[in-house]
Amino acid sequence: MSDRVILGADTGGTAVKWVVLDAAGARRAAGEVPTDPRDCAATLRRLAAAVSEAGHAPAAVGMACAGIVDPDTGRLGRSPNLPGWENSDLGGALRAAFPGLPNALANDVNAGLYGEYRAGAGRGCRSLVMLALGTGVGGGILVDGHLLVGAHCGAAELGHMVLDPHGPRCTCGSHGCLEAYAGSRGLLGAARAQAVPGSVFGDLVRARGEDLTTRDLASLAEGGDATARAIFAEAGRMLGLAIGNLINAIDPERVIVGGGVAQAGELIMGPCRAEAPGYVLAEGARTTPIVMAELGPAAAAVGAAWLAREAGAAAR
Amino acid sequence: MSDRVILGADTGGTAVKWVVLDAAGARRAAGEVPTDPRDCAATLRRLAAAVSEAGHAPAAVGMACAGIVDPDTGRLGRSPNLPGWENSDLGGALRAAFPGLPNALANDVNAGLYGEYRAGAGRGCRSLVMLALGTGVGGGILVDGHLLVGAHCGAAELGHMVLDPHGPRCTCGSHGCLEAYAGSRGLLGAARAQAVPGSVFGDLVRARGEDLTTRDLASLAEGGDATARAIFAEAGRMLGLAIGNLINAIDPERVIVGGGVAQAGELIMGPCRAEAPGYVLAEGARTTPIVMAELGPAAAAVGAAWLAREAGAAAR
Repeated sequence: MSDRVILGADTGGTAVKWVVLDAAGARRAAGEVPTDPRDCAATLRRLAAAVSEAGHAPAAVGMACAGIVDPDTGRLGRSPNLPGWENSDLGGALRAAFPGLPNALANDVNAGLYGEYRAGAGRGCRSLVMLALGTGVGGGILVDGHLLVGAHCGAAELGHMVLDPHGPRCTCGSHGCLEAYAGSRGLLGAARAQAVPGSVFGDLVRARGEDLTTRDLASLAEGGDATARAIFAEAGRMLGLAIGNLINAIDPERVIVGGGVAQAGELIMGPCRAEAPGYVLAEGARTTPIVMAELGPAAAAVGAAWLAREAGAAAR
Repeated sequence: MSDRVILGADTGGTAVKWVVLDAAGARRAAGEVPTDPRDCAATLRRLAAAVSEAGHAPAAVGMACAGIVDPDTGRLGRSPNLPGWENSDLGGALRAAFPGLPNALANDVNAGLYGEYRAGAGRGCRSLVMLALGTGVGGGILVDGHLLVGAHCGAAELGHMVLDPHGPRCTCGSHGCLEAYAGSRGLLGAARAQAVPGSVFGDLVRARGEDLTTRDLASLAEGGDATARAIFAEAGRMLGLAIGNLINAIDPERVIVGGGVAQAGELIMGPCRAEAPGYVLAEGARTTPIVMAELGPAAAAVGAAWLAREAGAAAR
């Protein structure tokens, strides 16, 4: 074993991102290998080979994965981005690919929150709530330094908090979930619904068609387009309502907002920060900081490495 | 010290309910003393005298109190039912009235949840969510056997989860909070709004005037009155939506519903249990039991005693 470096990996539908951290948590290497959507074991062997070829012999390995992950049993349950891996023994495959190493498993958003907690926007806090605004909206909750996994590994599904039962339909079947407002699918749906032909906004939305991104809308909004600004403002207000509800439930030290949609910055964060405190009951909790994530797309791999580091420490 | 009994007390606006539990948690005595709404110290001296007169010398004392209670510093913050005690050193007053005894402090709904956890509907679980449907709606969250207090003692204000921003106005200033549907104030408001003169329902609501209770409505509903049944059903559905959101956030082993409104039983619990699972994302969490509280109005005093018992154990 070279020098007690720790490997963290984040498995998505197309690639496994990995990082190697040293004992102090500094990044020593990073890379990615393609995901084999049908073969979990083959993918993890490929990961082990890549890390070894890069000259690293990790002392522990952490793995983040989209879907319902049971950190105790190592089972992967429902996983919409990895249907070929569903209901498999992820922990067993990890032990087979990295024999004898302490390991840790987590859902990807939980791992991302853990990364922000140890090395990003949540440093110094013991309780955090995170919302990751991607295509959908994922969530994570940290209580007293521990990820809240739940009795059925179903905690922190915060994207599906219903904010208005008369609101837009969500992919989950409910109406008015946070995800239907603040996930990119919901936000782009709102944009398409408001694309009046002949306006700058309408023409862009129609021209981009299926390639429309929240980045396109943010560019328009930054240029002053009122429709584009209003779409981000509405998403921000509903995000603020969700965060108000979450502060009333969890009262964390800080709320972290990450994911691609959050890259719109103040367009969405401004209305969110203006809206949230009005819903908060406890006076001391009204000024809870609502901050942007810091680690970007590597957060889950970094968090997985930190979880493995602590699993390794516990095993020693 | 007689026999290591533990005292638990629950301070409300008019009375302090107390119980004495033996080492096994069995109730040895119970009583109440009047609350002096202007003098916390005098009230606690009165409590100490009453317990002593009843022949008990407790080895530890727990105190539940409505409002924002900081269990670590002993400060009582905002407390709408005890304005004369607000911003006082409750912990100091408790130590003065019971010198030398280990003590524990908690918000009343949190203490009630702890009582249900140790001696009621939550026995055997390590993670629980509780909703107490009274005039307002209080909440409690237990994670891994510990009450979630929050970074600013503002956690578990679950009655003010906004379920519909276009819903009825709540006393907190927001619209569509759970409390506006499932607290007795909200439920009775809905009844008055639907009291058409000339119907059995309308005549009863008008005849009872300000004395109308949810018990009156439950009697009508049990007799088959469609309007009364619909009012409980709507409250139950909104309670189910709130519980769905809470299962998606916390994923507890069990959800406990208590408080006076819950005495309507299946009138409200039936629609609630039918509604909640449809909002839950994780398949394993859809069958999370939603159960009635067992300890009734003594829950907070019992829970305070259990908290004190554990504080005493930690101090030894």
